[in-house]
Amino acid sequence: MINVALFGAGRIGAVHGRTIADSTQARLVYVSDPIAEAAGALGKSFGAETATADAVLSDAEIEAVIIASSTDTHADLIEAAARAGKAVFCEKPIHLDAARARESVKIVEAAGVPLAIGFNRRFDPHFAAFKQRLEAGAIGELELLSITSRDPKPPPLSYIRVSGGLFRDMMIHDFDLARWFLGEEPVEVFAYGSCLFDPSAKDAGDVDTAIVNLRTESGRLCQISNSRRAVYGYDQRLEAHGSRGMLRAENPRPTVLERSGEDGVVTDRMMDFFLVRYADSYRIELEHFFEGIAGGEVRNPTGDDGLRALLLADAATESRESGRAVAVTAP
Amino acid sequence: MINVALFGAGRIGAVHGRTIADSTQARLVYVSDPIAEAAGALGKSFGAETATADAVLSDAEIEAVIIASSTDTHADLIEAAARAGKAVFCEKPIHLDAARARESVKIVEAAGVPLAIGFNRRFDPHFAAFKQRLEAGAIGELELLSITSRDPKPPPLSYIRVSGGLFRDMMIHDFDLARWFLGEEPVEVFAYGSCLFDPSAKDAGDVDTAIVNLRTESGRLCQISNSRRAVYGYDQRLEAHGSRGMLRAENPRPTVLERSGEDGVVTDRMMDFFLVRYADSYRIELEHFFEGIAGGEVRNPTGDDGLRALLLADAATESRESGRAVAVTAP
Amino acid sequence: MINVALFGAGRIGAVHGRTIADSTQARLVYVSDPIAEAAGALGKSFGAETATADAVLSDAEIEAVIIASSTDTHADLIEAAARAGKAVFCEKPIHLDAARARESVKIVEAAGVPLAIGFNRRFDPHFAAFKQRLEAGAIGELELLSITSRDPKPPPLSYIRVSGGLFRDMMIHDFDLARWFLGEEPVEVFAYGSCLFDPSAKDAGDVDTAIVNLRTESGRLCQISNSRRAVYGYDQRLEAHGSRGMLRAENPRPTVLERSGEDGVVTDRMMDFFLVRYADSYRIELEHFFEGIAGGEVRNPTGDDGLRALLLADAATESRESGRAVAVTAP
Amino acid sequence: MINVALFGAGRIGAVHGRTIADSTQARLVYVSDPIAEAAGALGKSFGAETATADAVLSDAEIEAVIIASSTDTHADLIEAAARAGKAVFCEKPIHLDAARARESVKIVEAAGVPLAIGFNRRFDPHFAAFKQRLEAGAIGELELLSITSRDPKPPPLSYIRVSGGLFRDMMIHDFDLARWFLGEEPVEVFAYGSCLFDPSAKDAGDVDTAIVNLRTESGRLCQISNSRRAVYGYDQRLEAHGSRGMLRAENPRPTVLERSGEDGVVTDRMMDFFLVRYADSYRIELEHFFEGIAGGEVRNPTGDDGLRALLLADAATESRESGRAVAVTAP
Repeated sequence: MINVALFGAGRIGAVHGRTIADSTQARLVYVSDPIAEAAGALGKSFGAETATADAVLSDAEIEAVIIASSTDTHADLIEAAARAGKAVFCEKPIHLDAARARESVKIVEAAGVPLAIGFNRRFDPHFAAFKQRLEAGAIGELELLSITSRDPKPPPLSYIRVSGGLFRDMMIHDFDLARWFLGEEPVEVFAYGSCLFDPSAKDAGDVDTAIVNLRTESGRLCQISNSRRAVYGYDQRLEAHGSRGMLRAENPRPTVLERSGEDGVVTDRMMDFFLVRYADSYRIELEHFFEGIAGGEVRNPTGDDGLRALLLADAATESRESGRAVAVTAP
Repeated sequence: MINVALFGAGRIGAVHGRTIADSTQARLVYVSDPIAEAAGALGKSFGAETATADAVLSDAEIEAVIIASSTDTHADLIEAAARAGKAVFCEKPIHLDAARARESVKIVEAAGVPLAIGFNRRFDPHFAAFKQRLEAGAIGELELLSITSRDPKPPPLSYIRVSGGLFRDMMIHDFDLARWFLGEEPVEVFAYGSCLFDPSAKDAGDVDTAIVNLRTESGRLCQISNSRRAVYGYDQRLEAHGSRGMLRAENPRPTVLERSGEDGVVTDRMMDFFLVRYADSYRIELEHFFEGIAGGEVRNPTGDDGLRALLLADAATESRESGRAVAVTAP
Repeated sequence: MINVALFGAGRIGAVHGRTIADSTQARLVYVSDPIAEAAGALGKSFGAETATADAVLSDAEIEAVIIASSTDTHADLIEAAARAGKAVFCEKPIHLDAARARESVKIVEAAGVPLAIGFNRRFDPHFAAFKQRLEAGAIGELELLSITSRDPKPPPLSYIRVSGGLFRDMMIHDFDLARWFLGEEPVEVFAYGSCLFDPSAKDAGDVDTAIVNLRTESGRLCQISNSRRAVYGYDQRLEAHGSRGMLRAENPRPTVLERSGEDGVVTDRMMDFFLVRYADSYRIELEHFFEGIAGGEVRNPTGDDGLRALLLADAATESRESGRAVAVTAP
Repeated sequence: MINVALFGAGRIGAVHGRTIADSTQARLVYVSDPIAEAAGALGKSFGAETATADAVLSDAEIEAVIIASSTDTHADLIEAAARAGKAVFCEKPIHLDAARARESVKIVEAAGVPLAIGFNRRFDPHFAAFKQRLEAGAIGELELLSITSRDPKPPPLSYIRVSGGLFRDMMIHDFDLARWFLGEEPVEVFAYGSCLFDPSAKDAGDVDTAIVNLRTESGRLCQISNSRRAVYGYDQRLEAHGSRGMLRAENPRPTVLERSGEDGVVTDRMMDFFLVRYADSYRIELEHFFEGIAGGEVRNPTGDDGLRALLLADAATESRESGRAVAVTAP
């Protein structure tokens, strides 16, 4: 059993806490959160203690930490945990500033501990099967990839303000998937973004709708589209074209029911949002992390993956502002 | 926490044992099986003791028993457990002989304990939603119901010999669903059955393919088709027609992937078999049983439901042999 | 060019008239109808003359007749046309009385002219492909066939009264398809029928909803369901199961559009009714008839096919009334 | 009846010739083609004479001309026909050089004759329904449009060399659809293109795969993807997102059949190519043109539409070469 501490007692902290509590591989020892009450409530529900970050990191019994706290704390916690010799799992992003993220990755490397980044979508069973079939040659050589990702509704202005913008906050997941599926690093990015419905996005200088193109060295192409609103639910789709065909991942739905009436043939809305749609992947990524620790090699998305997705988001942000394609910076 | 004993350490016993072990409502105290080794192994994996049926039933701490042993032991265990004042959950059927099943139900009633029958499909989230939408009037007044149920491949001859035949062993689940969805008791049954591919079915005097029609007092009609073989996987579908439209439940599939190639557009096979397809429903039915015990009213399918489904299977068996529609016997 | 006369200037007559007028194989010479005005209007629109049946049949230039008049005139016209040496295409049924239909078939055989029956569904491109794939072994040996056929709404009482009842009027198409797909003659029929929504059906002693089972000598099974009402449009589906899989024909739809909104994912209603759904097959069956005449061998469904489908309808009617499976009479 | 002359006796000429020959609105008088043999054969099959372009245009009986000749003849024929006072229908593009196309449009305007451009996809029943539902508000305010268009296989090098490149030859149809559906003019274009599989495209300095982004003044966004190869058939899809939902047009398929086997659930390949997929739209666009002439107002896509689509293709071509977003030139 791996002794684990959880930083962050918010929505994602609760999800990870449940996974650890149910896991046969790990034991939740501490929940740590600046809001002591939240830490206490969550800790209690899983039979874990509360402690300050310092106390957690100086407890030699703790082998791994899960960082699900607010974005601005990620880099500090990653670095401190790495220096304390803990295996680290951290929600994306490492930091909104790429330089600082790069610094954190270096510190982790120097410390020789594993760093896993919470790109949970790679662990979604449908997307994992997508990757597996691409690699098995189901459509031959990959040529073109399309990713669609739409949230049901926009976040509040307060969130947008600290989010780093749509490209760093939302599309970063798609950048990670794009790199993973393309099997090559994108070398250039072009982005369009618009404010079409969300006044908060406009107030924050952000966009609510965006389309992005990526190009790899060998000429593989990728289209990504994001919107902060989809009245029909959480929309997450993939489409890949290759020399031998097309592979698509449509949205899973709550039920397989289909009603035919005067109004046509009606099936279910998409699932509500990421906590439902990706419930399995949140669990699987953490179990995978624990297996990696136990087996001596963590194979989750790495700090380098986290940094590279951020650099793609930075390039997209710059492209959207400049109206030009932007070369991707080396990590 | 409800103290529970499990009878039967076979395939279904293992499924139920896992559910009890994971449940926050119940505690698995005993596993009992004539094959001591099997009971021991399963008990050990869930931290439960082994004991004889007598010992289990005389332990006053045991509040509920789960009967997942071989069919020929069901009635004896139900009756003994009822007399010992335990709440009983039993896999279908109560007994292959309706008279004995009727006797067991009477004994349970006299004992005043709840008896739940493992018609797990009612708890499948898709089928439960189907029922809920029918009741919500999604298609108005129900007129016609079609149920398709096909196993991936036939069971061995040894199993068929003691199974009571396709209608009592396999279609009994569809009879239960038919009663549940129709909202009225079928009064008459007509059945055709054929031996088209399975020599074992022929040897055992059974059929491997069957189609059955039901009629209710008010004239609602129902079609059921069963086959012991479907090379494309486990096929479980529903279709209901009413005054305002049609409601269908197609098969859930392992993934939402779709590949387009020279050979056409290809999606996944159906799921493999019932343990995978109905994994959720096995868990939910037992949690529902425990909730019922805790709340003072068990609302799972009852002994009467078990008996009525068996009587439909008996009528179908008789109809298949006689070539006539057969009136359904009163329970 | 084959000189053709058309009997019947009603709805189906107009459909056939259009096909002949557009055909490069045939020329519409006469339209004949007891209602002179109807014949005149239709004839005018296609540049054809009007004439009495006698005049038409004594015109030696006429090589083929298309009978689309009312059901009670079919047998008389078939026989007279056969005696006059014309090739005959007749809408189903030959006659509602099987004895008279048998007599007509004999007269046609004696006359040595081709008789084609308007079982147009065999010429629907989807159903023709279904047949072709069955024969190509797409699902191996056929074991079980299901046919669903639902009209959008019931016909008027006046029509039901002279229709011969649901089994002879509506399900007769499905009996023909069943024979065609099964590749074997059904030897026994069982039928349930109910009056669930249409007072006219009840007044006429007919049913509005029916389910029928067929069995062939070798044990192949077939389910048919019919309803006189489907609020979501005209519903025509096939499903066949064999040793190597399942083949389904779902309903074609007006468009390939799919809308996702707050209410779910919505696609088009089914097509409205048979004139739209089977527009192609009405045209193809007639062109096929003309090709057959030109080539010296008409391969459309024959008088024997017409008679056998009627005998299945008779058996179903009797079964519905008697509550027993009924053996199919030899043609 | 409108007297019509057809220029071009090739593949598309034959399609249009058939439509005119079958039309009740028009009469095919002449077929004109530099290859006299081709003109003769096609003319003969439709009962039309052959004549030189000059002879055709000086025949005062000719009211309309259909230009389906090679691309390099379009502008000359448009201008000559306009000067002769004929209504003109011309296949895209007017000319590969925008300046010359602009000149042609001006000459047509000065002549006061209608000019219709063969953007036939607007007349595809599925796409026309798509447009109609967008306008009816099915998804509220349009925000994002995605168009996928993939040919089954690349054209020969000889064709690519004179085609003007993928953006002007193939994507021009999608640019027209984009303008039509967006309901606003794109003001800027960004394009990526790659040579991934077709050596001929590389030889000709063209691309075989391309993704393009459009942006309108109000910020509506559009993604287009094109490939010269799709082994699964001709792939033509639309997807629009708006304030109230998503509207998609998937590919129509040859049949509604679905086979389930050991390999999964398999439906038909896409249709083969444009002559089959757009058979209806070729016919409808021409009938629409004739109706417009008869009614005094031709409402087909105009010369201005032809010019604007070409300017989008030019901008895409320039963007692909420069790596920058390119502002769309005024027509």
